[in-house]
Amino acid sequence: MTLPEQLTGVVPPLCTPLTASGEVDTRSLAALVEHVVRAGAGAVFALGSSGEAAFLTGEQRRTVLEATVEAAAGRVPVLAGVIDTTTPRVLEHARAAAALGADALVATAPFYMTPHPAETADHFRRIRAAVDLPLLAYDIPPAVHGRLAPQTVLALAGDGTLAGLKDSSGDLEGLRRLLVALRDTGRDAAFSVLTGSQLAVDAALLAGAQGVVPGLGNVDPAGYVRLYGHARSGRWEEAAAEQDRLARLFAILEAGDPAEAGPTARAIGGFKAALHLLGVIASPATATPQHPLSQASVRGIERLLKQAGLL
Amino acid sequence: MTLPEQLTGVVPPLCTPLTASGEVDTRSLAALVEHVVRAGAGAVFALGSSGEAAFLTGEQRRTVLEATVEAAAGRVPVLAGVIDTTTPRVLEHARAAAALGADALVATAPFYMTPHPAETADHFRRIRAAVDLPLLAYDIPPAVHGRLAPQTVLALAGDGTLAGLKDSSGDLEGLRRLLVALRDTGRDAAFSVLTGSQLAVDAALLAGAQGVVPGLGNVDPAGYVRLYGHARSGRWEEAAAEQDRLARLFAILEAGDPAEAGPTARAIGGFKAALHLLGVIASPATATPQHPLSQASVRGIERLLKQAGLL
Amino acid sequence: MTLPEQLTGVVPPLCTPLTASGEVDTRSLAALVEHVVRAGAGAVFALGSSGEAAFLTGEQRRTVLEATVEAAAGRVPVLAGVIDTTTPRVLEHARAAAALGADALVATAPFYMTPHPAETADHFRRIRAAVDLPLLAYDIPPAVHGRLAPQTVLALAGDGTLAGLKDSSGDLEGLRRLLVALRDTGRDAAFSVLTGSQLAVDAALLAGAQGVVPGLGNVDPAGYVRLYGHARSGRWEEAAAEQDRLARLFAILEAGDPAEAGPTARAIGGFKAALHLLGVIASPATATPQHPLSQASVRGIERLLKQAGLL
Amino acid sequence: MTLPEQLTGVVPPLCTPLTASGEVDTRSLAALVEHVVRAGAGAVFALGSSGEAAFLTGEQRRTVLEATVEAAAGRVPVLAGVIDTTTPRVLEHARAAAALGADALVATAPFYMTPHPAETADHFRRIRAAVDLPLLAYDIPPAVHGRLAPQTVLALAGDGTLAGLKDSSGDLEGLRRLLVALRDTGRDAAFSVLTGSQLAVDAALLAGAQGVVPGLGNVDPAGYVRLYGHARSGRWEEAAAEQDRLARLFAILEAGDPAEAGPTARAIGGFKAALHLLGVIASPATATPQHPLSQASVRGIERLLKQAGLL
Repeated sequence: MTLPEQLTGVVPPLCTPLTASGEVDTRSLAALVEHVVRAGAGAVFALGSSGEAAFLTGEQRRTVLEATVEAAAGRVPVLAGVIDTTTPRVLEHARAAAALGADALVATAPFYMTPHPAETADHFRRIRAAVDLPLLAYDIPPAVHGRLAPQTVLALAGDGTLAGLKDSSGDLEGLRRLLVALRDTGRDAAFSVLTGSQLAVDAALLAGAQGVVPGLGNVDPAGYVRLYGHARSGRWEEAAAEQDRLARLFAILEAGDPAEAGPTARAIGGFKAALHLLGVIASPATATPQHPLSQASVRGIERLLKQAGLL
Repeated sequence: MTLPEQLTGVVPPLCTPLTASGEVDTRSLAALVEHVVRAGAGAVFALGSSGEAAFLTGEQRRTVLEATVEAAAGRVPVLAGVIDTTTPRVLEHARAAAALGADALVATAPFYMTPHPAETADHFRRIRAAVDLPLLAYDIPPAVHGRLAPQTVLALAGDGTLAGLKDSSGDLEGLRRLLVALRDTGRDAAFSVLTGSQLAVDAALLAGAQGVVPGLGNVDPAGYVRLYGHARSGRWEEAAAEQDRLARLFAILEAGDPAEAGPTARAIGGFKAALHLLGVIASPATATPQHPLSQASVRGIERLLKQAGLL
Repeated sequence: MTLPEQLTGVVPPLCTPLTASGEVDTRSLAALVEHVVRAGAGAVFALGSSGEAAFLTGEQRRTVLEATVEAAAGRVPVLAGVIDTTTPRVLEHARAAAALGADALVATAPFYMTPHPAETADHFRRIRAAVDLPLLAYDIPPAVHGRLAPQTVLALAGDGTLAGLKDSSGDLEGLRRLLVALRDTGRDAAFSVLTGSQLAVDAALLAGAQGVVPGLGNVDPAGYVRLYGHARSGRWEEAAAEQDRLARLFAILEAGDPAEAGPTARAIGGFKAALHLLGVIASPATATPQHPLSQASVRGIERLLKQAGLL
Repeated sequence: MTLPEQLTGVVPPLCTPLTASGEVDTRSLAALVEHVVRAGAGAVFALGSSGEAAFLTGEQRRTVLEATVEAAAGRVPVLAGVIDTTTPRVLEHARAAAALGADALVATAPFYMTPHPAETADHFRRIRAAVDLPLLAYDIPPAVHGRLAPQTVLALAGDGTLAGLKDSSGDLEGLRRLLVALRDTGRDAAFSVLTGSQLAVDAALLAGAQGVVPGLGNVDPAGYVRLYGHARSGRWEEAAAEQDRLARLFAILEAGDPAEAGPTARAIGGFKAALHLLGVIASPATATPQHPLSQASVRGIERLLKQAGLL
């Protein structure tokens, strides 16, 4: 399908179900796509951080994208993460994604290296020039350890390099300044700002963002769709109440024991344990070297799902 | 006056007008208090970061507080910052503030040292035990280089140590989780959450915050009072539009040249240049070693004030 | 060849010469290997940070390693970097490196994700278990944004997972404590600590390190070999004088303009410009999205090489 | 006494003994001065980070300095820390220190605020202009959360503002480049570089530093004096062996439980517990809000002192 001029709504960054031996479980992945599309997702985002892209080999990434495109079946656009350290490596993923039918690409700034903002801008320009698909920038400082400069985003929105931004910076004040600047310079019509601040979605939409990419939307896509609907209809206090409910559910990301696993493993492990408990995916397994959640942690997640009325 | 059970509304963190030779200009300070009180401020906060507390000697701090209490004249409560590295030094400021008639104290976590969260909690408990005034915690990571742990805030709200929080962390998602937890544990009735996220005030109020402490409220207190009023009346889109306008005005903090002055000097210099242009204070001077803004920067601020309809 | 029980001496982290179009220039790479082996390098390290591993595709990495093994021709061991975000991706590189004849592997902690120290330890254990080659850990906080915990290194030295450490942390005090702990626990005999602190090599050797992996050793391998020789013979003041000379030469890493290129591009661009001026490699080209050095910067490097007597 | 043109040797940053109620114990302080002077200290540094300057009120600082000057009794110079957030506050301490007979001042860059390097330079210039005492800059990133730019230090060495640097950055490579630059520009004759890297003193001296300011020198001043003597006599391997021994003793800083106290409290608590066990000071009390070490931690320190032959 073709990406609409402006991407909007709830765009879950799909988890990548794995088997106990670490292989991609395409059947569970299809079920997860179904889970979020039926709930009203506006698009799906494969191979993002929640999708464990950083843990998947090139071949596994292709498997994921192929299965996602097939499961989406043209009902919603498929955004493909092309996350890697630098341009030459990202280009390999980008070409593969285009060949497999992705509707848009999502790339971070370079990492491992330390780029100059002008080098980061060139990175995005080279990707856009090499592969003819709409390109979104992914601002995720906890992973790449740098911020996308607002000037860079504005310049790349202005020259047509970027079709949007996935903002996982957590910086709502910066987001507002960007949204105001996009409107004031007339660059907002064909540019989508999607917030990754999954506990401040009401705030981001009130400030003018077009959509949201919530990791927690794997678990409760309907909740985010309701929140989005309230906001689009101006029912801001209902939106905030729904967001409060989702903020409580967010505790599933903290069910894991910090003495046993890092923040990435606890977040992804929490999503997957919940999806497994909900019967959406066949196994809660996460990729190596992430440590699995303990049984006690999983029981905590079960309680949270029950409290949220999801189980 | 007595602090209301719950502090609400717009609480400008007052700038400290200085003479060219670096002395406190109490006449200009009184005019600034008048400027914000007449605009509808719910309280004033003296000796915060915007008040250059970190640049003032003990004697200068006392002069500031005395002048502020006198100018407020019981019309609004006066919050007094007691910012210093550790407990023994903060206690000196706290006792002086109580003697001078402050209605509440605002303290940061210890800095220069690196505290354990339990040491930070003790720091607040010792201040509260030593001086019988409501105490607010001031979470300001760019200055103290640490976050207040939510568990610490919740515990200190629960045992009556803290009457509120000034949250300048910029983390709206953390703020929401804290607000939800305060409500879920019944600690919200006598606790005030004041956001320092001056470009996301609509978001913080929508999430349940009680008020705002905007540095930019020195310059445009009426704008923040309107924004607050819209929010309290459920006119969220009007609140957002007002916030957008203030986000544009925020550019006065960036008028200074980063090649000539640091971020602190540019922010405080921007506020003071604007207040000077508005005729509220007699001199835009900032404390040493901050570098003053250039004439070109000041002209840029003048343009911004005109665009905002303030000049 | 077989790696000696303990790797010692000067181990240059080889630059990867590229053509103007971004392909690996194997002829120049062979010349670079010759340049450092003839100068007395004890081993070579291909596909490290200085080797632009983060910029090379899987196929390019294989080309680099194949050419390096061929050029080394059994005269010195070839260490192969297997730098990637997480275990499954590192394992692909590790298997390829073993097949191509590498004598040892060098892996960082996981990045992009945020690992728990126990997950990092498992990462190294899984690599060691999957590929039967000596494994060195690469501690490089500026790239992976985390430190290797000393306890992790000691545990992995003790159980035979690691054959050594490349320490690019810049923390000489931590290095000393590690070296003392390795000796005190009898783990030092079969473990090599190689410092990446190329301007404090005398210090690291005095503290007991076995060798050095200096990026600047691409340009002046003979200087580092002399420095190493002085230290091994107890001529510490001669070692320090040689280190001082190399500290002056280090300015080639700062010849680039920070307004035009990031620190990675300036460092690698500086090495490659110097190697090109010295006639070792055919082109100073660096991989995208790094910006090239200006002609003025290159002339600055030329002057530095002349001052150092290398040109 | 007058400071020698160039300060050299071992300069312990004196702990500040306190009573259980938090008052300065001047008798114990005098004993501590005696402890280090008899061991051969070249000078003493009062009111540094190890001296808990950040915890002491203005009056307490004056008490400390008065007692230190009296106890030193002209045998060694007394350096006085004048640590505070910004210039106006530092000037108060500096004037007090001059009046009390300090031989030199030691000031950090501004903190709490975020200065531009040019503002930091002005900060030092204003201190030097206001108080006629030799001034040393104190580079301590863990406390002030910024580095002193080498260009700033070189400029201030060149124009006579600074008489020296206390380098607690931990960056031995940067230290070497600074030392080379000082020599190459002829600014080394009247400038003292004192390292705070107490586990890499041999390295710093080999690179050309003039002295050391070791917190651990409160506990084992004789060890540092021996280390310094070996280095000055070119016995580098003996120096390294002594440094290794002190690196083992450094474990007293880690005897405290990280679950109970922060790094500052564990470090200062460790020094003071050791001094108390050695009979030098009357109480191991630290200032609030630091948590004391547990009895188990103190027993661990006792074992370390015995292993080191100090007890």
